[in-house]
Amino acid sequence: MITFNDKTYTSSTEIFFEIFNDKWKLFILWLLINETKRFKELSQTLDITEKTLTIKLKELEHLHLIKRKVYAEVPLRVEYSLTTYGTSLKPLFEEILHWSQSYAKEFAKLS
Amino acid sequence: MITFNDKTYTSSTEIFFEIFNDKWKLFILWLLINETKRFKELSQTLDITEKTLTIKLKELEHLHLIKRKVYAEVPLRVEYSLTTYGTSLKPLFEEILHWSQSYAKEFAKLS
Repeated sequence: MITFNDKTYTSSTEIFFEIFNDKWKLFILWLLINETKRFKELSQTLDITEKTLTIKLKELEHLHLIKRKVYAEVPLRVEYSLTTYGTSLKPLFEEILHWSQSYAKEFAKLS
Repeated sequence: MITFNDKTYTSSTEIFFEIFNDKWKLFILWLLINETKRFKELSQTLDITEKTLTIKLKELEHLHLIKRKVYAEVPLRVEYSLTTYGTSLKPLFEEILHWSQSYAKEFAKLS
């Protein structure tokens, strides 16, 4: 058995599915894969309420996948970027991109 | 713009995140990656109600990712397996496995 955040799992892959058990976390990481983004930029890209985005960003921070940097400016600037563990998802995202392109080519329509 | 199932997207990757926007669909495909499974086997492995599992399996069928085969036996035998497009997720699942193992090594505890 594997213990992670006070829950037990039978495999490490199960932890992956538990972490990414919603429609947002993986998508947020995807948006941060090549660049640092501000809260406002993320909320404008995603069809998400500011409250949910705040919760998801906190979860990702707690999971050591993103880091939050606050700049003492007026107005306050808050930026999010990937940690080493977040960045290590890059090969997985490349596979997502690759698969999505083939899937869309077959089942979606370009307009 | 890309049209898929009567919705528009800005990229094919967005379709991926829309498809796998819940905690179940990707996990179900993962369980079917190397073998055909019966409804009962899936429901025993997943912490899911039979109603939700039925919905998710129908969604995956509709997405051309799994196929359902009914054997005229008593009791009726219903088996699920991946289609070609479901099987083409294999490299992605290999990356998930790889990443999960590194992540668990760092943040989880074996017991």
